[in-house]
Amino acid sequence: MARLAGVSRSAVSRTFTPGASVSEKTRQKVLSAAEALGYQVNIIARTMITGSSNFIGIVTAGFDNPFRSKLLAPLVHQLALNGFMPLLMNADDPQQLAPSLKQLLSYHVAGVIITSGAPPLSLAEEYLARKIPVTLINRHADLAGCDRVCSDNAQGAKLVADLFSRRGWRQVGFIGENRENFSTRQRYEAFIARTSDMAVSSRFCDSGGYQAGYQAARELVAENPGMQALFCATDMLALGAQDGLRDAAAPLPAIVGFDDIPQADWQPYQLTTVQQNTALLAHHAVDLLMTRIARFSLPSRHREVPVKLIVRHSAK
Amino acid sequence: MARLAGVSRSAVSRTFTPGASVSEKTRQKVLSAAEALGYQVNIIARTMITGSSNFIGIVTAGFDNPFRSKLLAPLVHQLALNGFMPLLMNADDPQQLAPSLKQLLSYHVAGVIITSGAPPLSLAEEYLARKIPVTLINRHADLAGCDRVCSDNAQGAKLVADLFSRRGWRQVGFIGENRENFSTRQRYEAFIARTSDMAVSSRFCDSGGYQAGYQAARELVAENPGMQALFCATDMLALGAQDGLRDAAAPLPAIVGFDDIPQADWQPYQLTTVQQNTALLAHHAVDLLMTRIARFSLPSRHREVPVKLIVRHSAK
Repeated sequence: MARLAGVSRSAVSRTFTPGASVSEKTRQKVLSAAEALGYQVNIIARTMITGSSNFIGIVTAGFDNPFRSKLLAPLVHQLALNGFMPLLMNADDPQQLAPSLKQLLSYHVAGVIITSGAPPLSLAEEYLARKIPVTLINRHADLAGCDRVCSDNAQGAKLVADLFSRRGWRQVGFIGENRENFSTRQRYEAFIARTSDMAVSSRFCDSGGYQAGYQAARELVAENPGMQALFCATDMLALGAQDGLRDAAAPLPAIVGFDDIPQADWQPYQLTTVQQNTALLAHHAVDLLMTRIARFSLPSRHREVPVKLIVRHSAK
Repeated sequence: MARLAGVSRSAVSRTFTPGASVSEKTRQKVLSAAEALGYQVNIIARTMITGSSNFIGIVTAGFDNPFRSKLLAPLVHQLALNGFMPLLMNADDPQQLAPSLKQLLSYHVAGVIITSGAPPLSLAEEYLARKIPVTLINRHADLAGCDRVCSDNAQGAKLVADLFSRRGWRQVGFIGENRENFSTRQRYEAFIARTSDMAVSSRFCDSGGYQAGYQAARELVAENPGMQALFCATDMLALGAQDGLRDAAAPLPAIVGFDDIPQADWQPYQLTTVQQNTALLAHHAVDLLMTRIARFSLPSRHREVPVKLIVRHSAK
């Protein structure tokens, strides 16, 4: 093939090695020759020789969580653009965590992306101890060599607080997942810091799901009947809150969510929400991972992705 | 390790080979020894030696389709139980189909599961030509050596027609995806066959999504103002139809969907629907694939999974 392409053997090898340096012109020559020869890159063989694979573990939880589903497509896309193949691990079941660690190691994964708050950080530590790069999405960690990308939660909470302030709403509420959840905590703290002139009642739930929001909103409004506006730390909590309060026939406060999942735009909800830029989160997560695969010793990096307030009928 | 476990080398090898025969007692001895030694199965090395991997390609489309998300978790779970690892391929983009074929081949996938109506059947043919087993979920094919598992669409449509009949509804409607879509076609034909004493108006859309249902339902009811009941071939179509008709302030017909996605149970919808048993679909799909991996020359098999009518407020 090197002969057909008119390039060196090493250029052929570099063309098929993710992250290796090769000029675009050479790469095109090699790819045309490969196409002409019907060449299949034998990835398994290359892994044996180089000791590292082009597999990336994606550790997630709740495949049916609409926000994580929305994040999955751009992640897989960005990995594919870089010649990497995702291995999907469901961390829903704590019983699966230990086996999944071993399993990913046995595939010589080149790196791991953790997209969920669920897996314990000790999992990230175990990969890092083996010099396998780890990138966290929307999650905190003080681990040497671990990179993180987060939506700008503080900016998002500020956008919501400013909306409440402009509208003169003083009796407001906050509903979040449990206090240990990183995103909930950041959104809550930034919201509280910005609403010192308001009376804020808050509630934390065992989950960030629809049913939790449904229940929590009813309880919160029952205790605070004059509540004018409610900020929920996830869209699923907010959609549940809307339905819970509609059913309770209480006067409906303005409601704002966080994520912008497809259902937020459905007719009964028309939810005002803080939109996370999933394409940009995925882009940065893969970029951080790729550069660390090339050089494991980089200092820890952290990137924040701007968010945007999408105003719909639920609060405007 | 064989020495520590007190078993033969071949028993160790069989323990780590998916589908190989080994007694439970031997397996336990080997696993304890492996645990004690901190042994990592080197899957990559085994693939080099045996020429086949324990990767299974899952070709899907629309990660954010709630029904396919609901199917993904049990599929990954069933594969893991059998020692197989899924490689996820997004067939949303037709541009990705040709590269994904090559990519899966380069990983020596042991088999492929196609969960979406989107990828052309020529994809399945190309795998089969290379003696790579293919299982289709909810899709038709007349391909030698290709196995299929489907929800019992005819039974589902009959359950809906019988409900309409019991309630004396005679002016009814049907909304489906395009006519080439296998599930839509089966559900439509069985519904028509069972409603010869009713006046049925139908409409086919470009997609099976929320917006398509929203539009189609408004048009269908505008043309047939006395419509008493409406059967939609997917829940997403049905949820869109409910919202579209609510907005149009038309008298709301009874509405029935198909799938039972989580949103069907949300308060504004309370959708009566035909529930697909995703756990059983996944179980059969993986079982069919495993047996064909063991023996490629089996005749084509087809299994139908029973469905169940879930009655909620939208039609009862």
